Amino acid sequence: MTQRQSPTRSANGLAQPLGHASLRRANLALVLRHLREEGSCSRADIADSTGLHRATVSNLMAELLERGLVREVGTERAGAIGRPRRAVALDGSHVGALGMEINVDYIAVHGTDLSGRVLVERRIGFDAMGQGPDRSLAELGRVTRRVIGDMKRAGASPGGIVVGVPGLVDSGRGVVAFAPNLGWHGLPLADRLREELGGLRVPVTVDNDANLAALAEFTSGVAAGTADMVSLTGEVGVGGGIIVGGRLLRGADGFSGEVGHLPVDPGGARCGCGRVGCWETKVGFAALVRSATPDQAYGLDTVPTPDPEERVREIARGLADGDERTMGAVAEVGRWLGLGGSILVNLFNPRVIVIGGYFARLAEQLIPPAQAELEQLVIAGPAARCRFMASNLGFGAASRGAASMVVDHIMDDPTAIGSAPVAHNIAGQRL
Amino acid sequence: MTQRQSPTRSANGLAQPLGHASLRRANLALVLRHLREEGSCSRADIADSTGLHRATVSNLMAELLERGLVREVGTERAGAIGRPRRAVALDGSHVGALGMEINVDYIAVHGTDLSGRVLVERRIGFDAMGQGPDRSLAELGRVTRRVIGDMKRAGASPGGIVVGVPGLVDSGRGVVAFAPNLGWHGLPLADRLREELGGLRVPVTVDNDANLAALAEFTSGVAAGTADMVSLTGEVGVGGGIIVGGRLLRGADGFSGEVGHLPVDPGGARCGCGRVGCWETKVGFAALVRSATPDQAYGLDTVPTPDPEERVREIARGLADGDERTMGAVAEVGRWLGLGGSILVNLFNPRVIVIGGYFARLAEQLIPPAQAELEQLVIAGPAARCRFMASNLGFGAASRGAASMVVDHIMDDPTAIGSAPVAHNIAGQRL
Repeated sequence: MTQRQSPTRSANGLAQPLGHASLRRANLALVLRHLREEGSCSRADIADSTGLHRATVSNLMAELLERGLVREVGTERAGAIGRPRRAVALDGSHVGALGMEINVDYIAVHGTDLSGRVLVERRIGFDAMGQGPDRSLAELGRVTRRVIGDMKRAGASPGGIVVGVPGLVDSGRGVVAFAPNLGWHGLPLADRLREELGGLRVPVTVDNDANLAALAEFTSGVAAGTADMVSLTGEVGVGGGIIVGGRLLRGADGFSGEVGHLPVDPGGARCGCGRVGCWETKVGFAALVRSATPDQAYGLDTVPTPDPEERVREIARGLADGDERTMGAVAEVGRWLGLGGSILVNLFNPRVIVIGGYFARLAEQLIPPAQAELEQLVIAGPAARCRFMASNLGFGAASRGAASMVVDHIMDDPTAIGSAPVAHNIAGQRL
Repeated sequence: MTQRQSPTRSANGLAQPLGHASLRRANLALVLRHLREEGSCSRADIADSTGLHRATVSNLMAELLERGLVREVGTERAGAIGRPRRAVALDGSHVGALGMEINVDYIAVHGTDLSGRVLVERRIGFDAMGQGPDRSLAELGRVTRRVIGDMKRAGASPGGIVVGVPGLVDSGRGVVAFAPNLGWHGLPLADRLREELGGLRVPVTVDNDANLAALAEFTSGVAAGTADMVSLTGEVGVGGGIIVGGRLLRGADGFSGEVGHLPVDPGGARCGCGRVGCWETKVGFAALVRSATPDQAYGLDTVPTPDPEERVREIARGLADGDERTMGAVAEVGRWLGLGGSILVNLFNPRVIVIGGYFARLAEQLIPPAQAELEQLVIAGPAARCRFMASNLGFGAASRGAASMVVDHIMDDPTAIGSAPVAHNIAGQRL
């Protein structure tokens, strides 16, 4: 039997073959991804396209059928002559992918099936910062249980949950190392949520909200498919997710893309984090509110602004009315957006910077000064050909990215779904 | 015949098989890299380890033998029983890899054979900035022709040349888009060097000097093999090369890692590039000279400092003597090094920042304040576990990285070396 290995390469170019233990899993994933990309195919087509032996494909397909991840879709005839061949297609309508986000003042939910069909989409106002970690986890558990119930009623049992959090996340251990705007330190969120879910045994993964939003932008946003792009969340905090060569940049600990506290002005104001001149003190939502509508502002930059939706509408009205203070404040934020953007362009050389959250709402007025400042400050100038674009994913970007990450996890390891006889798993993993 | 494809994956996880046209080349590369990694092997071992059929391996090996890239190394017996099997090993002693660097005040050369054995290593003082592009190219051509002659006399004919330049390089076209410290704009260096070489038909590639230095650090420096690292050149300009997940970060145009002109102080001094408060105005060598030994300094930050070696020695003497002005100046550069480093850590989350050039020479005094400032400013604090380390590759880092890139190019496409009957090349490429 021929097995396909996916060699990975280090920077010095050495091919590193996978161990035998993960071969069968990799081959199952290969077949499943092929079906996702190509639609329905015969086993023979799959064998030809993947380079796997036909006997191997039949064997893998038997397992995927048993797990309910593919289904037979009748017969197709190869050309004018030849026997009709049975075709198979990706199924997974009974497998759910649940993406969640808990942020400063809301919990967002995005549930799909394996094909990406949206089953649940919800945004629940919740004062996570004020409620503290314990009550926030209880609420997250309550929302999750309810949504799992809704998805099951729609016929899909979640095969995984990914939760986005605005902070530094140790994804491997499922721990929120530090979420400054939530006041969380070393919170074992994955374990705690599993406890809240009790008997429901669903794999839980935690990730940074901006990373998840970047995945959603890369998968289905205004610049979808752009191999080198940066995505910025524009809320109370400003987070970044970075796509490099078509992949999410993670760094050594998964702490990459922390743009909010870049030191951009050593002579600037003190930030809520205790440092001076962080980018958030220039472009965070609280900074804009403070200069555009000072009577509505609190003292510190990262203290949550009351009723943010109303504040955004008020600023938009000020712009529409040509109010000078508002226009000046937005233009100033735009210039600082361009300055921080120039750091990102000098370092990452992306083709697009997608701006989400409140940035997207005020994009028409923010982008022109930001783009001008960017091209002035970037060392390659306009030759770097990077432009700001407003996200169209709204506040659901992170939970949408979380759901697509669940789908990717399942595609990477189809053996985590359902059950199949252990004898089928030649890689020796118990299911 | 079974052919191995190396599927590449996009961020959404779709496997993208290679076209048939590049399969044979990929398989030749696979076999060659396996030999580089494992040493001598029998054809049967290679077939088992790579998943290729034995007939395919024999066929590939015939081509590699004809191209002189492998050699027979006698027989080995597999265990106590069984017939003795002929083993093969990587050869390539007759194939040279020529790495060059042209910088503000020198040309550096690093020539090896395919196994990495150093054949030529040289540093030639040359005022590239003062001489302008035409005379610089003539000198580069003269040095290259001489070195190729030396390498040929040592038995190795260069299979490729990579030239490092301190600036923005369009590697695909071999054009230096902008090298601020050399005053070059839109210079087609690869074409011009090929002209200078006349009848010598050797592939020429151009790349950014800091990227090449980062490759050298990743391959053979103090932090070799660290999957997430940043390498900084410390010279008149400050360049950065970034390794992400074991690969060099390039960005959309190859313009990534441009750290020298990060805007770090909007209230700061004017930079030679015309902008204000660039990182180079804080940590570039001219900035240090200006504050440590002001009587030796020129006006603008990026104007070349006369006799830089003597200035470094003078500063080192000042530190050894406990001279307060010198110590204060170096500590101040250290703090700014930490501030810029914190931007890199917040964004890339590397494990190590390797500092080269003059930074390495003064590392003992620069690193403590830099490390303290870094841990203060990074949002993850000491949890990011990133440390500064002094490079031990000296001024030859970029040319060394350039030579290893040539070796990688040859490993990636062995069909570019020597000649073999076209009939052997089933991928249909003429040689």
